Amino acid sequence: MHQAEFISLLWLIGIIAEAMTGALCAGRKQMDLFGVVIIGCATAIGGGTLRDMLLGNYPLIWVENVHYLLAIAFASLLTVIIAPVMRYLSKLFLAIDALGLAVFSVVGAQKTLMLDFNPVVAIVMGVVTGVFGGVIRDVLCNQVPLIFKKELYALVALLTASLYIALSYYGIVEWLNLAISLSFGFGFRMLAIRYHWGMPKFDYQHNQDGEIH
Amino acid sequence: MHQAEFISLLWLIGIIAEAMTGALCAGRKQMDLFGVVIIGCATAIGGGTLRDMLLGNYPLIWVENVHYLLAIAFASLLTVIIAPVMRYLSKLFLAIDALGLAVFSVVGAQKTLMLDFNPVVAIVMGVVTGVFGGVIRDVLCNQVPLIFKKELYALVALLTASLYIALSYYGIVEWLNLAISLSFGFGFRMLAIRYHWGMPKFDYQHNQDGEIH
Amino acid sequence: MHQAEFISLLWLIGIIAEAMTGALCAGRKQMDLFGVVIIGCATAIGGGTLRDMLLGNYPLIWVENVHYLLAIAFASLLTVIIAPVMRYLSKLFLAIDALGLAVFSVVGAQKTLMLDFNPVVAIVMGVVTGVFGGVIRDVLCNQVPLIFKKELYALVALLTASLYIALSYYGIVEWLNLAISLSFGFGFRMLAIRYHWGMPKFDYQHNQDGEIH
Repeated sequence: MHQAEFISLLWLIGIIAEAMTGALCAGRKQMDLFGVVIIGCATAIGGGTLRDMLLGNYPLIWVENVHYLLAIAFASLLTVIIAPVMRYLSKLFLAIDALGLAVFSVVGAQKTLMLDFNPVVAIVMGVVTGVFGGVIRDVLCNQVPLIFKKELYALVALLTASLYIALSYYGIVEWLNLAISLSFGFGFRMLAIRYHWGMPKFDYQHNQDGEIH
Repeated sequence: MHQAEFISLLWLIGIIAEAMTGALCAGRKQMDLFGVVIIGCATAIGGGTLRDMLLGNYPLIWVENVHYLLAIAFASLLTVIIAPVMRYLSKLFLAIDALGLAVFSVVGAQKTLMLDFNPVVAIVMGVVTGVFGGVIRDVLCNQVPLIFKKELYALVALLTASLYIALSYYGIVEWLNLAISLSFGFGFRMLAIRYHWGMPKFDYQHNQDGEIH
Repeated sequence: MHQAEFISLLWLIGIIAEAMTGALCAGRKQMDLFGVVIIGCATAIGGGTLRDMLLGNYPLIWVENVHYLLAIAFASLLTVIIAPVMRYLSKLFLAIDALGLAVFSVVGAQKTLMLDFNPVVAIVMGVVTGVFGGVIRDVLCNQVPLIFKKELYALVALLTASLYIALSYYGIVEWLNLAISLSFGFGFRMLAIRYHWGMPKFDYQHNQDGEIH
């Protein structure tokens, strides 16, 4: 399998995993099937879409290749059907989502670098790509974005994108860079879930002092 | 009356109806008059603005022709004044909103097609134009988007845009296409409200199996 | 100090004040440190970013000059550290935020005018720049946007931007225009806070008539 095809395949797995998290979130809010599809799409392509809109990089990927959108809509509806068995698959699902996070962060950074933006912008866009699908999902489902409260997520995106950029900078061959960065991001996220690693929290209430937990 | 003028008039009725739904939503959250105007504007032009930003189609309509924005602001404030009689007009209001939905879906698809995007993208953009004004309204008013929970709305946009695209493809003359598509969208939405047609809902709770109602 | 440097300095103070309001809002929702940084960034640059995306004006300021983003991230984290003393500094903080509002409104209008858009668009974009950082903050923190409910905020942006545009139109020299517009915006906002000036509110409940308070 060609290297570009391999990363495309991983990316496809990533958007499908994201679509499924969106569909489940819609289900928790008792939305109808159209709501499920729209939340699924917004979750899956929201991060990459926001990145390209921030960079002014048109046409958007899913506008140019609308098959992605159909795949995401299909995955969202499939989630409704397989929901009863989802709880037995929750570990598998977390693993696929972790893979998606790693792929999105690397691909987001990679694409930004290819557009000749500087490395710091590329890292920021890796985070935007990895994280903002979930943020848009939570905004549309009217809840405080989960990724700002639970196990390490955005930090995984930041470090994964940074690692990829650093290895690119030192001229490491692309396939090895991808292997290292993706393994790091995937492994780090899985460990964070397993051992409940989280960032310190900032608890600021009007009537008391702010404190970090 | 010229055909392009006729569709412009319908579109103007549509954005004014949307502005009024936004103003009422702001009123339910006890916002001030400036909040009313901003929510009114975001609801009325949010869908079309998002469409053009996704397509990279600049300048935006209301940036090029700022009179639309003034009309929307005026309609939003007018809503505050006529609010006491709104409940006697609620059926008329639902009808105007249904007309707006049909017009937005057709115009969104039409404009996308004119920019030489493919038909599937045009259908997606018809839905975005028809639906996302209301989604942005609900996000700004901090509530779960209504259109994902109540009577058919997004499906009306999808089918109306699809019908318009299909009739265009078969070369039907434009004025007849508009008449058929708009009548279909308007009638379908009114029937959905009258008979409480809704999409199946996806109810997924952590502690129970997901099920479709 | 050169005039352009002076306005840049004020703008920098403005984005740092905005970042701090974002960080505090994240703290009220008990977000983690990464959440604090992301909400801080979105609040500080959200208004200007939305303006440039609406105008199709690329590259974005913080993409071209990523140092701003690093300064904002630093200010957000600093807020966590100084949070315990923030309540003793709340009046200073309100003053800095008022200055930020005035600067954002003027700079937003100024930049739009420089891009050859018409004056009404420039006023609208002054409001967008001044106000939407706070709106995005509140949406991400899952609360009804404060600026639509409390003391005059958006109206200050509107009048400040309008004053700047009007004085430009009459050919007043730029430094004097800046001095007058910024003083007006800052003073007006401070007076609004001091005397609890607010816009009339629109209270529309399903079961009662809408009324203006």
